[in-house]
Amino acid sequence: MKLSEMLLAQLEREIPATRKAVERVPEGKTFRWYGRYDYDLNVAHTLDTQLNVFADFNPQLSAKARKTPFLFLGNIQPTLQREVRAQVDARFVAMDTMNYWIEKTPDELLKTIAVVDALIINDAEARALVGEANLVRAARKILAQGPQMLVVKRGEFGAAFFTKNSYFATTAYPLESVFDPTGAGDTFAGGFMGYLAQADRIDDATMRRAIIYGSVMASFNVEEFSCDRLRRLTSEEIRARYLQFKDHTHFEV
Amino acid sequence: MKLSEMLLAQLEREIPATRKAVERVPEGKTFRWYGRYDYDLNVAHTLDTQLNVFADFNPQLSAKARKTPFLFLGNIQPTLQREVRAQVDARFVAMDTMNYWIEKTPDELLKTIAVVDALIINDAEARALVGEANLVRAARKILAQGPQMLVVKRGEFGAAFFTKNSYFATTAYPLESVFDPTGAGDTFAGGFMGYLAQADRIDDATMRRAIIYGSVMASFNVEEFSCDRLRRLTSEEIRARYLQFKDHTHFEV
Repeated sequence: MKLSEMLLAQLEREIPATRKAVERVPEGKTFRWYGRYDYDLNVAHTLDTQLNVFADFNPQLSAKARKTPFLFLGNIQPTLQREVRAQVDARFVAMDTMNYWIEKTPDELLKTIAVVDALIINDAEARALVGEANLVRAARKILAQGPQMLVVKRGEFGAAFFTKNSYFATTAYPLESVFDPTGAGDTFAGGFMGYLAQADRIDDATMRRAIIYGSVMASFNVEEFSCDRLRRLTSEEIRARYLQFKDHTHFEV
Repeated sequence: MKLSEMLLAQLEREIPATRKAVERVPEGKTFRWYGRYDYDLNVAHTLDTQLNVFADFNPQLSAKARKTPFLFLGNIQPTLQREVRAQVDARFVAMDTMNYWIEKTPDELLKTIAVVDALIINDAEARALVGEANLVRAARKILAQGPQMLVVKRGEFGAAFFTKNSYFATTAYPLESVFDPTGAGDTFAGGFMGYLAQADRIDDATMRRAIIYGSVMASFNVEEFSCDRLRRLTSEEIRARYLQFKDHTHFEV
């Protein structure tokens, strides 16, 4: 069964709640980000960020949404993220952010980081957030702000996972062709949170697996334009690539 | 026992041969490389390369050296590397090179690559050697030139190992402070070759372990200036860090 079919089936079941949960405004553009990628595709350079309808967004969650055990705060204004976080009695809360908020609202952002369990950002953002070139020192400073965990996305170099007492890192899937790196980070977060929610655990071994699943999903997403590859992705393909990650990183002691 | 003491003891035993093997010229400067490192310390930018006495070097190996089973061809003019390679009846031959030879003598370099088992270079060199931005495609093109194996050093992002049929990659040791990245690549190659020679095997599992030992040695080397850290390094410290690499990369299937 294709993932898109599974998701559609789930959406069908939950469609009344979903309809209520999506807020529509009479006019205005959606959030837009413009950027360019260099030669190596690892770093997205922001050319323009337009908040548009997001600027006045004030999310009101349904009673059902307030009970979700695994909450991911997507990249919006950090004060709004904190308000959403306050509405939910979640067991595990992760968040994303971007250079825009690091530069424009650093104090609000740090307040939000203080009330989540995990921050999921890329390496340039981690360095910029605490003004520290060395990633290990940057991670230490970020964890001192409150979150228990930091997941650092590193593009073609994989991902790193920091807690106060442990470290885990994986390389990325070796792709011959990266068609469209846009959305790789969001797909990573989706795979990561989706796995945690399915496993319904947050111990170290589960976190490590979640990071591999996030990496797997991101590696599929960049193979084609937009969500094209994800639309026809199957659970079997995901599992097979997860096992390839194991093969690519295993060594004997 | 410190490594330096072990090496000194070995040198004492082999000193007559070593004395003969080191060639001295009456005058001239040694090889010199000048470079700078950016903010992130990952890429060494060459400012100047002076061959000096290396320009006329024509290595003549002793009868004992010609029988070494594991040969590493350090970074010199590729025609000379090939001449050294021809003098040795080795079971496994690896080589290094640098941007200087990729730019100045690409044809000679490709001829040398064709007669070794493994090429050990950094990612920028791998891309430049075959004019290919994507590392996986670059690796495929390099392996088509003759070597069975390609080891790609990626600085703080670790190392990748390509053969025609397999792929292995490791992240680097997470260091809070990189004091001096100069020589990290040479130390990697030393740890890699040293482990292979000690194991006396060249199967896939041994290669993977050798890449981890190379990464371990490089991670120690960059902690202090020049060879200072290596001078007082112990076998126990090396083994402990190897096990940390396992802990940092392990996940369950």
